[in-house]
Amino acid sequence: MSIKLSPLAPQKLKNVNCIEGISASITHCGLKKNNKEDLVLIKLDKPGEIIGVFTRSKTPGEPIIWNKSIIKFGKVSAILINSGNANVFNGSAGKLSLLNIVRELSEQLNVPKNEIFVASTGVIGEPLDEKKIIKKIPFLISSLKNDKDSWNKAARAIMTTDTFPKTHSEKFLGEGKFVINGIAKGSGMIAPNMATMLAFIFTNAQFERKIFESKFFEIVDKTFNSITVDGDTSTSDMVLFFSVKSGIQKKMKPGEKKIFFVYLENLMNQLAEYIVKDGEGASKFIKINIKGAKSKIDAKEIGKSIANSPLFKTAMAGSDANWGRIIMAIGKSNAHINPMRLSLKFGKFVILRNGKKLFSRYLSDIDKYLKNNEIEITVNIGLGNYNWTVWTCDYTKQYISINTDYRS
Amino acid sequence: MSIKLSPLAPQKLKNVNCIEGISASITHCGLKKNNKEDLVLIKLDKPGEIIGVFTRSKTPGEPIIWNKSIIKFGKVSAILINSGNANVFNGSAGKLSLLNIVRELSEQLNVPKNEIFVASTGVIGEPLDEKKIIKKIPFLISSLKNDKDSWNKAARAIMTTDTFPKTHSEKFLGEGKFVINGIAKGSGMIAPNMATMLAFIFTNAQFERKIFESKFFEIVDKTFNSITVDGDTSTSDMVLFFSVKSGIQKKMKPGEKKIFFVYLENLMNQLAEYIVKDGEGASKFIKINIKGAKSKIDAKEIGKSIANSPLFKTAMAGSDANWGRIIMAIGKSNAHINPMRLSLKFGKFVILRNGKKLFSRYLSDIDKYLKNNEIEITVNIGLGNYNWTVWTCDYTKQYISINTDYRS
Repeated sequence: MSIKLSPLAPQKLKNVNCIEGISASITHCGLKKNNKEDLVLIKLDKPGEIIGVFTRSKTPGEPIIWNKSIIKFGKVSAILINSGNANVFNGSAGKLSLLNIVRELSEQLNVPKNEIFVASTGVIGEPLDEKKIIKKIPFLISSLKNDKDSWNKAARAIMTTDTFPKTHSEKFLGEGKFVINGIAKGSGMIAPNMATMLAFIFTNAQFERKIFESKFFEIVDKTFNSITVDGDTSTSDMVLFFSVKSGIQKKMKPGEKKIFFVYLENLMNQLAEYIVKDGEGASKFIKINIKGAKSKIDAKEIGKSIANSPLFKTAMAGSDANWGRIIMAIGKSNAHINPMRLSLKFGKFVILRNGKKLFSRYLSDIDKYLKNNEIEITVNIGLGNYNWTVWTCDYTKQYISINTDYRS
Repeated sequence: MSIKLSPLAPQKLKNVNCIEGISASITHCGLKKNNKEDLVLIKLDKPGEIIGVFTRSKTPGEPIIWNKSIIKFGKVSAILINSGNANVFNGSAGKLSLLNIVRELSEQLNVPKNEIFVASTGVIGEPLDEKKIIKKIPFLISSLKNDKDSWNKAARAIMTTDTFPKTHSEKFLGEGKFVINGIAKGSGMIAPNMATMLAFIFTNAQFERKIFESKFFEIVDKTFNSITVDGDTSTSDMVLFFSVKSGIQKKMKPGEKKIFFVYLENLMNQLAEYIVKDGEGASKFIKINIKGAKSKIDAKEIGKSIANSPLFKTAMAGSDANWGRIIMAIGKSNAHINPMRLSLKFGKFVILRNGKKLFSRYLSDIDKYLKNNEIEITVNIGLGNYNWTVWTCDYTKQYISINTDYRS
């Protein structure tokens, strides 16, 4: 099976910036076929601070279990990421594999085990041959580099069914006093609550973990938790946020924090958008704005009900103004709805206003609009003041091909 | 777009039986193209008893609103069913269309309006031109017939994207003292809580509504509410159950009730199975047995989480023993799970027992088994005594074709 580049892939990614005090190395260890790179080590010169969000799956992978057990200490010295095997549901053997890898890394890097994070993505239930990984540790350590190219290579090595690597970088305040870099992967099984996606975000800004945490969770909710490809939820997802300590630590002044969060949200938004744009088989990027809901929960639920509806997603693939399927998806949610208060727009074209249809005049314009590969849909529930935005993609034959032909 | 007969269509449907005291007529009124039949009138000689279950959609069709308003009286003299237009989200015009149709039927049949039920299926949000229907009422009334062929024709006339008509009949106890006939439609948007499906069940058995109702709801839950094609929920679904009064009413003796319910469940099960087997693009019929859950709610939720997972459904389309996707789907549910207690079988082949993998010996047998067009999957949660079974179909390129190319 050969997967072509997503038609929604960005023309060009923004250049990443180097961050002092952090380096990375990339290699292949044989978990992916054809000598493809599948192993990434990222090392911090001094222990940094870490915050994380993990999948809510009841059958999480070993890396999730491990990371959750050590994140309470809040310190990080390294992360090892492999693709090609998720190390999920391998019983006690899976746990042992992970512990062996962590022990080796701890000894060779000379850092405590509870500062070593692990991430794995790939097939579920396939024993992880940790020897393949352990054999490469000396090489990884000896080839650690702090350059721009390593970020790009790392983003490529963590891909599974992704068709393009996902990186983004922000540099701001006084000639780039602060830098934030992010790499991510994800293309199928992207759904509410952190589905098959990994995202690693690094900054030279120093933060107090407790104050920062709630803001970070809030941004995760608005970005990575508001995208969906197929409604499936993975066993391996995580978003980790690293504060890297360098020779001269970048402390934030009170006024700078606000600016920092704007850039951070922008970066996380961009990575989330890339994940949707690489949605398996996606031919259209769809933004769904829910306005005027009775509660935040209602707004989210309606947005996700539309975004996860196969009938809505196939209508979008066919550029069909089948707004009835949006009504169906709104109707099946548990949210408060009054059909006579519903308003709906495709782009700037009003379809419904307070339950009344108003689109016959410009049907051909709507048809033309829906042929774009970026579509915006706005639903006003008309019952309150709560808004939410969800991003998704359409459902094409290619999605089925990718997932039918994928061999476990 | 031409849709071929589902490869899962039954070779032959069981012959329907006539029921004394009920007749039907079928015609085309122009809601479907190419003079296809799209209108069915079913008339009871004397007012019968009726029980119903309706979609939980918050944006239901006018027929749902109407039927719910009159079912409390429990009497039925006729039902008019149209395909080609769902009469959903047409505002006050939609309500008026329905009321005009009911008034005309009431006058011409000379029965009270609150004994006239209506069902519509087809496009959402398209104004229903009731004149097309009203014009055909005299013809429908004059051509009412009580014969076997009418049942088959009616089942065909209520089809939308269905590829075969769905009927079933049971005749039992002392040379067919009791008869139950059922007709149904449904192929896409079949999901938890009564999604795009109509089912009408008729019997000559007499029942006390209050006693019967709870048993009927229980059977609906085990049959029509336990099937899913794509997780979408329709605005128009209903299951109606009619008790027809004839010259000699068939009263049930206490011991006969039990037998009656066995046959009723069998009939509803068969119709539900036909709906899944006509799932849009389906190439495989999949039975998912959940055993040993901690509660009934858990058992249902796990079953539906697997059955609605696009990744599981595409794996089945590819005959791929990707059991990791089942683990993922179990993990994303809200049910109680302990990975070390999970057992899983494909057919008779054990994949996992108490979290341990046990399948390497007969991998080629499993591959062979998954090429069948009827697959049975059994998951034992190992935490309790609650079981549930869910039926679904696989997810193929054909599903996408049907729904992408369908023009609203």
